[in-house]
Amino acid sequence: MTTEQLVEQIKIKKSFLCIGLDVDLNKIPKHLLAFEDPIFEFNKSIIDATHHLCVSYKPNTAFYEAYGIKGWQSLQKTIEYINLNFPEIFTIADAKRGDIGNTSTMYAKAFFEDLNFDSVTVAPYMGKDSVEPFLAFEDKHTIMLALTSNEGAFDFQTNQSEENQLYKKVLETSKNWKNATNLMYVVGATKASFFTEIRKIVPNSFLLVPGVGAQGGNLQDVCLHGMNNQIGLLINSSRGIIYASNGADFAEKAREAALDLQKQMEAILKNATL
Amino acid sequence: MTTEQLVEQIKIKKSFLCIGLDVDLNKIPKHLLAFEDPIFEFNKSIIDATHHLCVSYKPNTAFYEAYGIKGWQSLQKTIEYINLNFPEIFTIADAKRGDIGNTSTMYAKAFFEDLNFDSVTVAPYMGKDSVEPFLAFEDKHTIMLALTSNEGAFDFQTNQSEENQLYKKVLETSKNWKNATNLMYVVGATKASFFTEIRKIVPNSFLLVPGVGAQGGNLQDVCLHGMNNQIGLLINSSRGIIYASNGADFAEKAREAALDLQKQMEAILKNATL
Repeated sequence: MTTEQLVEQIKIKKSFLCIGLDVDLNKIPKHLLAFEDPIFEFNKSIIDATHHLCVSYKPNTAFYEAYGIKGWQSLQKTIEYINLNFPEIFTIADAKRGDIGNTSTMYAKAFFEDLNFDSVTVAPYMGKDSVEPFLAFEDKHTIMLALTSNEGAFDFQTNQSEENQLYKKVLETSKNWKNATNLMYVVGATKASFFTEIRKIVPNSFLLVPGVGAQGGNLQDVCLHGMNNQIGLLINSSRGIIYASNGADFAEKAREAALDLQKQMEAILKNATL
Repeated sequence: MTTEQLVEQIKIKKSFLCIGLDVDLNKIPKHLLAFEDPIFEFNKSIIDATHHLCVSYKPNTAFYEAYGIKGWQSLQKTIEYINLNFPEIFTIADAKRGDIGNTSTMYAKAFFEDLNFDSVTVAPYMGKDSVEPFLAFEDKHTIMLALTSNEGAFDFQTNQSEENQLYKKVLETSKNWKNATNLMYVVGATKASFFTEIRKIVPNSFLLVPGVGAQGGNLQDVCLHGMNNQIGLLINSSRGIIYASNGADFAEKAREAALDLQKQMEAILKNATL
């Protein structure tokens, strides 16, 4: 999927919502555990209930790997289900990978070819040659960690004096990498005040923004400082939507939670005349 | 496996060699492709031929994920084969994971519980709360990227003035994290001159050293500057051993390549009276 197609979807659906499919067997409704693949059944119900309200789904690979081969099967069935039934959805493998060049190529094959995701998240620590193998894939997107939503972001990312902060260096340096037009960045919503600085460095890039909802970030603040004239934001919510209820009504409650965010987004887009 | 048990194994085997099991179906002997699980058959032959010459095996997860569920099955069979037949081997899942706290816990479960590896490599970019969930596991080890062996290491890790270099900050900061005694660090062999500085910060930690062999690092230089009085080094070689031949004699040639490194290590240990 191209960036233009993503923007088009956002305008059609009046939503820049991404739903995180971080499925923990301890948190899903108990009646699903009777199915052969409870994780896939859960995802399928969430997707069926919310696909018209969001433009993206983002399974975090950790929640699948924790269940070994069965978990990997659930991930594969989930991405196949989305690609088959909702090809207009922008899919993100939240994997935070990154390794030396030939190894990153294998990760890129895993997520772009074998699983056929539209994008994958990567970590920047190993630098240019660890990320460029992902960028080499046409019509695929590489979403690099810049400023994350957790407490630990302050350990290294924002360390140093204002002008030397690591996350800024990551943004500035990566702009010049080969096929950098395929780059997006992860910027946590819990740090809304940073968006102004970030937009000075990457005015045009899409930002994937976790941290709205359970982690405490504020949607309006993020949009105020982070939106650009092509929207440029994907706002992720995981727990706030998928665990809105742990009863038989989980899918309906997820739909309501997604609808609430979509309505807020529709109003924001209208205000911004986008 | 405890660090003391690892040191004991190094002394028994007179080897601190780690063999990287980075299996690419395009590089293994063609006759293995007739097997149902060529990757596992390849690994089994390599392990049978070399287990007495090394103290550790390190499958890089990228090479398994690239083949989807079949690849994940090969990884599981490989770790089960090692744990069952060679429990004295220190196993490393070279996964370079790291995410917000509850997600890192899922990764830790994947590698420490589901697959039962002794250790996993992690990336430091997201800071303390992304790594501590791994450190919480008793008798397991977390091997954090510090200074990697690739060109891209110079993009961010060594960026800044001498005293502000990121890799030093990573070493210094992480020393104070909870259960930091379970921490080891990745330091690339291609940067032997950095070991002196690194040992000033983490004199006692084990360092996992990739980059000897195919990537051009020098074993003697690394040991000269990086070894401590409990050895403190695991030297990894991947391609130089497992692809020593792509013919029917691949396991025998791998054994010879491993033996060559083990003999050098034996001499180094003898010289250092360790």
